[in-house]
Amino acid sequence: MDLKTIYLGYLAALNERRFGDLDDFVHAEVTYNGEVLTRQQYAAMIDGDSQAIPDLRFDPQLLTTDGDLVACRLWFDCTPARPFFGHPPTGERISFAENVFYRFREGRIEEVWSLIDRESVARQLGQG
Amino acid sequence: MDLKTIYLGYLAALNERRFGDLDDFVHAEVTYNGEVLTRQQYAAMIDGDSQAIPDLRFDPQLLTTDGDLVACRLWFDCTPARPFFGHPPTGERISFAENVFYRFREGRIEEVWSLIDRESVARQLGQG
Repeated sequence: MDLKTIYLGYLAALNERRFGDLDDFVHAEVTYNGEVLTRQQYAAMIDGDSQAIPDLRFDPQLLTTDGDLVACRLWFDCTPARPFFGHPPTGERISFAENVFYRFREGRIEEVWSLIDRESVARQLGQG
Repeated sequence: MDLKTIYLGYLAALNERRFGDLDDFVHAEVTYNGEVLTRQQYAAMIDGDSQAIPDLRFDPQLLTTDGDLVACRLWFDCTPARPFFGHPPTGERISFAENVFYRFREGRIEEVWSLIDRESVARQLGQG
């Protein structure tokens, strides 16, 4: 299976909250922005975001793959229900981007370099 | 010439401050994070950053190309000499990432989606 198909399968698992399926997509240890996490810690991080934002949906706006690398600009259009990045929810819909790179090994993610537009999130939640 | 080679030529032009050469790499109008700029405005933005940070150097840490898209994680290790993102310089060296996507058309950049780790910059400049 090509990396683009695998990656879209990974996003589908996140969007359907099938965190148990991350076994198929993520190594037992994954380095996220320089920090080594177990797959369980990685899943818990994303689960935490989806608890804060029940309608969180990972939408790949731009997607490139090259060798073992995947690069994606994810677009989020959602309504936080609990504090997100420390900002209390307003009840209003917000939208923001994440530009993220992944290095795969043997078809599973082993390293992630993510930048989220936190400034835009803060501004939309009235704290920018 | 393949897109990777063109893109590395673009970074070399930036690193050598050959902003006149951007004619070869950037369309007359370029959309940067949703805002339409002339090539001159785009060059002036990067020139402004390099005035604030004389040793600013664009180092491609991760680079993928796919169709008309380039995705790059740029790494900066530099010493601001003037305010950067509104933060006064400390005289200390800082390092930070930019995760950026470009859409090329006929070998030149026509759209850019950039996220810079502004939180890390603010933290290192003592304002995080």
